[in-house]
Amino acid sequence: MTSAAPAPAQPLPPVAFLKGHGTENDFVIVPDPGNELRLPASAVAALCDRRAGIGGDGLLRVVRSSAHPEARSLAGEAEWFMDYRNADGSIAEMCGNGVRVFARYLQRAGLVDAGDLAVATRGGVKRVHIAEDGGITVAMGRALLPGDGVTVTVDGRDWPARNVNMGNPHAVAFVEDLDHAGDLCTAPPFTPASVYPDGVNVEFAVDRGPRHLAVRVHERGSGETRSCGTGACAVAVAAARRDGADPAVTGSPVTYRVDLPGGRLTVTEHPDGEIEMTGPAVIVAEGRIDHAWLEAL
Amino acid sequence: MTSAAPAPAQPLPPVAFLKGHGTENDFVIVPDPGNELRLPASAVAALCDRRAGIGGDGLLRVVRSSAHPEARSLAGEAEWFMDYRNADGSIAEMCGNGVRVFARYLQRAGLVDAGDLAVATRGGVKRVHIAEDGGITVAMGRALLPGDGVTVTVDGRDWPARNVNMGNPHAVAFVEDLDHAGDLCTAPPFTPASVYPDGVNVEFAVDRGPRHLAVRVHERGSGETRSCGTGACAVAVAAARRDGADPAVTGSPVTYRVDLPGGRLTVTEHPDGEIEMTGPAVIVAEGRIDHAWLEAL
Repeated sequence: MTSAAPAPAQPLPPVAFLKGHGTENDFVIVPDPGNELRLPASAVAALCDRRAGIGGDGLLRVVRSSAHPEARSLAGEAEWFMDYRNADGSIAEMCGNGVRVFARYLQRAGLVDAGDLAVATRGGVKRVHIAEDGGITVAMGRALLPGDGVTVTVDGRDWPARNVNMGNPHAVAFVEDLDHAGDLCTAPPFTPASVYPDGVNVEFAVDRGPRHLAVRVHERGSGETRSCGTGACAVAVAAARRDGADPAVTGSPVTYRVDLPGGRLTVTEHPDGEIEMTGPAVIVAEGRIDHAWLEAL
Repeated sequence: MTSAAPAPAQPLPPVAFLKGHGTENDFVIVPDPGNELRLPASAVAALCDRRAGIGGDGLLRVVRSSAHPEARSLAGEAEWFMDYRNADGSIAEMCGNGVRVFARYLQRAGLVDAGDLAVATRGGVKRVHIAEDGGITVAMGRALLPGDGVTVTVDGRDWPARNVNMGNPHAVAFVEDLDHAGDLCTAPPFTPASVYPDGVNVEFAVDRGPRHLAVRVHERGSGETRSCGTGACAVAVAAARRDGADPAVTGSPVTYRVDLPGGRLTVTEHPDGEIEMTGPAVIVAEGRIDHAWLEAL
């Protein structure tokens, strides 16, 4: 014998998963405390495929920080690391709706209690609060408001939009009616185009009452979505500036209710600029991914 | 005491489900052999919701024919009844991709063996064959070809389309390139509009080789889909007429490969008009639906 026969392929063990959502931003949750799963981009994309897989806007892998090289240094501060992946399998730093669902999973699995919690992410340690009434609050960082804004055009009508950066770029347009956003089948064009050479998330917001807005979102690369956490924060920040309620000026926090197609988020901006977002998080189902299907990926 | 206190609400037992697809036409499968589950339209719609629920193009409830009033008379012919629901919870007669996934579930659960099988549906008893190689064949009935066809317009360009009725109406246009179908964000307009007052499913087909077509579909009410079983049959029938291969004329069956975005279907039309469609069916995952979520529906 000049070479060893290849080892027979071992059947992979079934992979446990859960499915959950926060304001209908939905996720496949894969518990993997010991960081033992091999989940290349192709497997994540297959799991997030809505028709050929389980389906989700992204995947949340739940790993003990001490077991993951990217999070080990944070293990003293945050026991659990959210390995967040976009639906195409690419790595992302953070997801405001995702971290609520992540926290709900930990609570439901008995791994944390309601109350304060720190979650390690690629965007740093995030402070989370699980309220007894079911809402989950996440510290979303600060907004930047660069430049003079852009003009967004829908069905031949122009709308001024404010630039708000929440780690990702947003253009927030206040409209008279959400139908003015059109069908959002394609990304709304904006000028000057040079402001966002890589595109921008566009929010269309309408007033529903005092400190209460309704919003539709076109997410860069995804189309219209049911919810966008950073978008809700961007809208609240833009509304506070429009309403003369900038907390850095008034010295008082300001809170907006933001109704998205998938549900309500509540956004509070503090005088130091820190933004907190509160919303629901729901686990819908749990199960196991079929052996044969996973092996064929 | 003048009235009894209301009985305390009993927690519902968790509902077992599976998720599967046939050429990426996907389904929530709910085994309920004894016909014991209450699944009103609202619950079906919630389960089929892609973001707030499990997600699917429809739901397949697996019921013993003898246990279901709509199927009891068929129980001697077909042991299992496919209670098919559309994603909005409405009742449907049949689904060609769905019945393959239904058969795959029965086989996987050990309830039937590979080989010939009869499935009770609201559209009657359907003959199914589960091949050892994995493909599943379904008898799809006969096509009708009413009228002279319509003209479908995309991006200012007109395409003649043949009318094919497979129980539901289809307009089949042969194009030079699938990009000629445009973005299919909205239903392609057709004339005369009076031919299909309730709208029509539109297929755009291009030749890929001898008896081999590639197709994009706009389904009435659903938009562009990854696959449409009756649409694949309609395309094969229209192509056979175009190619001078009508089995009723030639006396020989004719087979077309039909590549849809979600995978390949093979369609054979016999001299008596009977159409058989063969394709894959995959079970991806199985699990249980969360108590609390289901109770809150």
